[in-house]
Amino acid sequence: MSIAIPEITEKLLAAKAEKGLTFADLEQKIGRDEVWIAAVFYRQASASPEEASKITEILGLDAAVAKQLTECPLKGLGPVVPTDPLIYRFYEIMQVYGMPIKTVIHEKFGDGIMSAIDFTLDVEKEEDPKGDRVKVIMSGKFLPYKKW
Amino acid sequence: MSIAIPEITEKLLAAKAEKGLTFADLEQKIGRDEVWIAAVFYRQASASPEEASKITEILGLDAAVAKQLTECPLKGLGPVVPTDPLIYRFYEIMQVYGMPIKTVIHEKFGDGIMSAIDFTLDVEKEEDPKGDRVKVIMSGKFLPYKKW
Amino acid sequence: MSIAIPEITEKLLAAKAEKGLTFADLEQKIGRDEVWIAAVFYRQASASPEEASKITEILGLDAAVAKQLTECPLKGLGPVVPTDPLIYRFYEIMQVYGMPIKTVIHEKFGDGIMSAIDFTLDVEKEEDPKGDRVKVIMSGKFLPYKKW
Amino acid sequence: MSIAIPEITEKLLAAKAEKGLTFADLEQKIGRDEVWIAAVFYRQASASPEEASKITEILGLDAAVAKQLTECPLKGLGPVVPTDPLIYRFYEIMQVYGMPIKTVIHEKFGDGIMSAIDFTLDVEKEEDPKGDRVKVIMSGKFLPYKKW
Amino acid sequence: MSIAIPEITEKLLAAKAEKGLTFADLEQKIGRDEVWIAAVFYRQASASPEEASKITEILGLDAAVAKQLTECPLKGLGPVVPTDPLIYRFYEIMQVYGMPIKTVIHEKFGDGIMSAIDFTLDVEKEEDPKGDRVKVIMSGKFLPYKKW
Amino acid sequence: MSIAIPEITEKLLAAKAEKGLTFADLEQKIGRDEVWIAAVFYRQASASPEEASKITEILGLDAAVAKQLTECPLKGLGPVVPTDPLIYRFYEIMQVYGMPIKTVIHEKFGDGIMSAIDFTLDVEKEEDPKGDRVKVIMSGKFLPYKKW
Amino acid sequence: MSIAIPEITEKLLAAKAEKGLTFADLEQKIGRDEVWIAAVFYRQASASPEEASKITEILGLDAAVAKQLTECPLKGLGPVVPTDPLIYRFYEIMQVYGMPIKTVIHEKFGDGIMSAIDFTLDVEKEEDPKGDRVKVIMSGKFLPYKKW
Amino acid sequence: MSIAIPEITEKLLAAKAEKGLTFADLEQKIGRDEVWIAAVFYRQASASPEEASKITEILGLDAAVAKQLTECPLKGLGPVVPTDPLIYRFYEIMQVYGMPIKTVIHEKFGDGIMSAIDFTLDVEKEEDPKGDRVKVIMSGKFLPYKKW
Amino acid sequence: MSIAIPEITEKLLAAKAEKGLTFADLEQKIGRDEVWIAAVFYRQASASPEEASKITEILGLDAAVAKQLTECPLKGLGPVVPTDPLIYRFYEIMQVYGMPIKTVIHEKFGDGIMSAIDFTLDVEKEEDPKGDRVKVIMSGKFLPYKKW
Amino acid sequence: MSIAIPEITEKLLAAKAEKGLTFADLEQKIGRDEVWIAAVFYRQASASPEEASKITEILGLDAAVAKQLTECPLKGLGPVVPTDPLIYRFYEIMQVYGMPIKTVIHEKFGDGIMSAIDFTLDVEKEEDPKGDRVKVIMSGKFLPYKKW
Repeated sequence: MSIAIPEITEKLLAAKAEKGLTFADLEQKIGRDEVWIAAVFYRQASASPEEASKITEILGLDAAVAKQLTECPLKGLGPVVPTDPLIYRFYEIMQVYGMPIKTVIHEKFGDGIMSAIDFTLDVEKEEDPKGDRVKVIMSGKFLPYKKW
Repeated sequence: MSIAIPEITEKLLAAKAEKGLTFADLEQKIGRDEVWIAAVFYRQASASPEEASKITEILGLDAAVAKQLTECPLKGLGPVVPTDPLIYRFYEIMQVYGMPIKTVIHEKFGDGIMSAIDFTLDVEKEEDPKGDRVKVIMSGKFLPYKKW
Repeated sequence: MSIAIPEITEKLLAAKAEKGLTFADLEQKIGRDEVWIAAVFYRQASASPEEASKITEILGLDAAVAKQLTECPLKGLGPVVPTDPLIYRFYEIMQVYGMPIKTVIHEKFGDGIMSAIDFTLDVEKEEDPKGDRVKVIMSGKFLPYKKW
Repeated sequence: MSIAIPEITEKLLAAKAEKGLTFADLEQKIGRDEVWIAAVFYRQASASPEEASKITEILGLDAAVAKQLTECPLKGLGPVVPTDPLIYRFYEIMQVYGMPIKTVIHEKFGDGIMSAIDFTLDVEKEEDPKGDRVKVIMSGKFLPYKKW
Repeated sequence: MSIAIPEITEKLLAAKAEKGLTFADLEQKIGRDEVWIAAVFYRQASASPEEASKITEILGLDAAVAKQLTECPLKGLGPVVPTDPLIYRFYEIMQVYGMPIKTVIHEKFGDGIMSAIDFTLDVEKEEDPKGDRVKVIMSGKFLPYKKW
Repeated sequence: MSIAIPEITEKLLAAKAEKGLTFADLEQKIGRDEVWIAAVFYRQASASPEEASKITEILGLDAAVAKQLTECPLKGLGPVVPTDPLIYRFYEIMQVYGMPIKTVIHEKFGDGIMSAIDFTLDVEKEEDPKGDRVKVIMSGKFLPYKKW
Repeated sequence: MSIAIPEITEKLLAAKAEKGLTFADLEQKIGRDEVWIAAVFYRQASASPEEASKITEILGLDAAVAKQLTECPLKGLGPVVPTDPLIYRFYEIMQVYGMPIKTVIHEKFGDGIMSAIDFTLDVEKEEDPKGDRVKVIMSGKFLPYKKW
Repeated sequence: MSIAIPEITEKLLAAKAEKGLTFADLEQKIGRDEVWIAAVFYRQASASPEEASKITEILGLDAAVAKQLTECPLKGLGPVVPTDPLIYRFYEIMQVYGMPIKTVIHEKFGDGIMSAIDFTLDVEKEEDPKGDRVKVIMSGKFLPYKKW
Repeated sequence: MSIAIPEITEKLLAAKAEKGLTFADLEQKIGRDEVWIAAVFYRQASASPEEASKITEILGLDAAVAKQLTECPLKGLGPVVPTDPLIYRFYEIMQVYGMPIKTVIHEKFGDGIMSAIDFTLDVEKEEDPKGDRVKVIMSGKFLPYKKW
Repeated sequence: MSIAIPEITEKLLAAKAEKGLTFADLEQKIGRDEVWIAAVFYRQASASPEEASKITEILGLDAAVAKQLTECPLKGLGPVVPTDPLIYRFYEIMQVYGMPIKTVIHEKFGDGIMSAIDFTLDVEKEEDPKGDRVKVIMSGKFLPYKKW
């Protein structure tokens, strides 16, 4: 899957690996969710100067890195249909359950959308004797279509 | 957005509208989640004969419809990038948060994926004074890559 | 350009043509902007029951049409790159001025987007001796990226 | 989103950041709109020798940079469907409101298009207690189709 | 090549064939260029009521056809890369000579484009003992990029 | 627009700029049309050894460059739909006028095509008080389909 | 493989099947190659009135069919990459041997192409004890690039 | 046309040019067809150690090059629709004559395909007073579909 | 997933369902593998007249159906990337294991391919206490690249 | 076929070639299947620290390489339709036999899929006097769709 991982991401991941830290550890230290922190690493989210400093201090990286993390990035993976199986499953969920979700949201809320900006996403591990489960919880503000 | 909605879906939706039922009502009557029932309506999921009969009885539709609902459908919306804004947001979430989610899941579970088959999806309304929120909860079994 | 115009759109446009009404006339009578009304015609926006009734009364169409106009539609033109020259120009504007707009918005507002949902769009005619001009005014709520 | 930002753009942005200047500041100093100046930065517009000199003087860059800014660039972002959420919203607006805008423009002006060349675009911040709004004002000359 | 030829085009072409008329004949009778008239037939251009009446009178078609010809059509063939060899050659010319033409036009006129709206196109037969030649003459107004 | 301009093209354009020569000047000196010469620059056409020597002598470039210009290049821009507005207009012309041109050529010549190989293309500036016009004249041998 | 076979093709193939004729038989009766005749059946080639009459007489079809066969068709299969294995192999040959063929043709002929218009194609059966072979012989006029 | 020519191909072509050899010369010296040899150059075919040694000895290249030529390459040009006019014509032939060839082969051989693996391809120059012709002869084993 | 299932397939499946037969039953009665028989149903394989008669006799369908089953079909699903999850997994296997399989086959057999024509495919159910497994066994003749 | 082979893959393949080892040899030494080992080489599968050490020890590579082999890779070839003939055949099998396999699996197992994660794949050489055969055996856990 031809995604150009930015250089800064490589640097951040290498420093994190060297320190033996997980994203869950960073969540503890920084006070932000691990998924959001990972999004900062992959330049899909921008940090405030304070957040950026905390991240680079913990990882032992310099201020130039911190500054870059505060910039508003160009976002998105790029490939139209992702080939990585883990990421593809989210594409498949949208292909298979897109219309059912749309119908149920409209029934519950009226015409509008779930925001992907005023939005949070958590990943949790649900232990289960039949096999652990990945729990992904999305919460986005409902935005009704404005009429004018 | 050029999606050919199957005829049977139109028939089911029309009958449901005529009876004045919501998917939440159907959830109550059938004992299955509203999203799963909507997936059956859109021919993205197959029902057991009992489930199919319950659905068609409630909607006042005949046995031929029930039989069709038990068949294993060809699944998927079709359009590579969905243009409907509500559905697109889920595509955008995968574009923006795909890599962060991947990294966090691998860190928590190792190499593997979240199943989109041994999988459930709930849509909830979170009331919030700053604007209600759509909560989407996905739970999929973690499948580790088998080695051989 | 292969866009399947919905049957109901054809019916609405034909009735409007027969009555000799412009969208500007409908704006006067309905109290909603002409672009929004045209979006209802093309099934890109949903009307309230009252709005739908007003539209169909003015056009002499029946209640079944009105009911359809209140449903939440599947939205979007479909073709990835539009071939119609008028519509293409908006695609070109995004191709050419996309990055400059992004930079300026981020500079003025921080990381986030202009909502296309909490959004209005007006089309005005600017008379000009060197050739009249089309003025398109978009106004969308700024949505800052939520952190979590 | 795989867009190759030209080297000269990086250089201009870095110099502007170092000087602590915004595009609005440059608008003041250069007498051209901030969006147009950003378009010059991203090599989507070409400057006159005077404009180019002013820009490079303010930023402390050399004459070779100025000369490059006067060349007619190859324009356009490239990716067919942009994945960056801010830029995508403009694509979505065209997907959803493309036909309504077309209809209203034809009704007001006849057959023809809004020029994207004899064209200006402004971005303004509308303060609003319910959340500030992004106002984008496009003004393009109407070009009627010539018959021959 | 999967192009849906509109019904009205089929009707116009059939009537023209029945009358034994060429587009060159129509040029004589209507006072418009044969290519433009063919564009009206294929619903790529809109006629004035007078032009539409002339066309339908000559072809013995009714007023409903004439009215349709005055509507502003959705334009464009559709297929991204045309497969018909005659049409493909124009695509190939743009592929091969696109950059050279761009360079020469910029050198002669500065930054801007050749309008495809304030535009005429003629097709002529050049007799030549080594094989007749197709001459295509395009003339489009030069539109310089507006600065603002 | 992601087109990889070959290194040799950059070198030729730089030398031409340094000498202060236009393609029209080169036309005078070399005895070939400026568009064809630009096509040689962009490696879309191959020169004879004599033509190549003339070009490199005028530009003060060495024999290795001349040799490269005589090689048969891989041709074509690459991007399926060009995003540069000037080049896109030629794509639009084919989208809008493709079928009309096809019909008129078949009517004048029978089944066959206009050659894009036994082909010339001129760009002229037509002065016009209402705005100068770009005139593009294409002349291609008509090739009738061979039957066998 | 979603190719819309034209109705007239279905009619011609059905009549041919009913008469128990092969394309080789038609070659004998009509004096044109079987591949060319098949191309006429699939509306990829146009027949003269005499050829069309011969074909429809032999097949017992009426004059309206004959007339249609004389029209210049829109050509090409449509799908960008063909999925039918037999047709795909020709696509694969171009993918694998495209550059080698290009190089050898340029070496033998100079810069130019093999015409696909002044072109014939024969399919022969080569009997071979190790398995019969399909022989496809293409012959196209070499067209050197014109310089101007 | 954005095809990444492998470095080894550049090296082989440069050595061949320096020695003043044509592919036809190599055919004489190596005892393999010039097209196949060109396919080895472009890393679309793999040579035996003996063949590879012969090639590199003739061209004065070292054993490391020879070794690389024996490796099984990743094959195919890449671009879905080739833009180079010479190569495109083979794509066009498949678009236009694909169905006719399919029909004739099935009629002569039954259900199956022409192999593109047990396959040879020759390019010949047919001298012709009306213009020389390119003759391309393909011979592929017919492979009937196995039933099981 | 927008696949146009041929009418004859619907007819065959309906008759099979009515008779209460599985493909495994048909395998028993016809003496051909169930997958191959399903391929005949979906018009991806052609039957001999005897096989076709057996199939239609068992299903109580007429001779016209049998005749159609003997015709060489246009093959392939169509959609470039399949959206149905079951079929997609085979696409994913090729994406993930394509290069490893290629390397291992070349190591075991040399340069060439596994035929998809001289090819069989079986689907078996492997009972397993941890969850039954689907076993898919492909066997294709190795075809070495011919040199010439 | 433009696939960027990772640097580490090149290093592993080079070391393996130098040692004169086949994947079958590695299977013997490492106790894992040769296809899985090749998948580790191509960064499509991740190894445990023990497996990674064994691989690098055998190949004489350092610990940094071993560490990289334990990371969860981004998976997938990338090109939507593969052009390499060997890999394409697997795509073709899915195109041609996708629906038949789907039908047979559903008949044997009900609604669900064959896992591509809890999955093994073997490549065997079947000697055959009529030509050796490639046998590919896939075994994936059947995953029934969960209802909720």
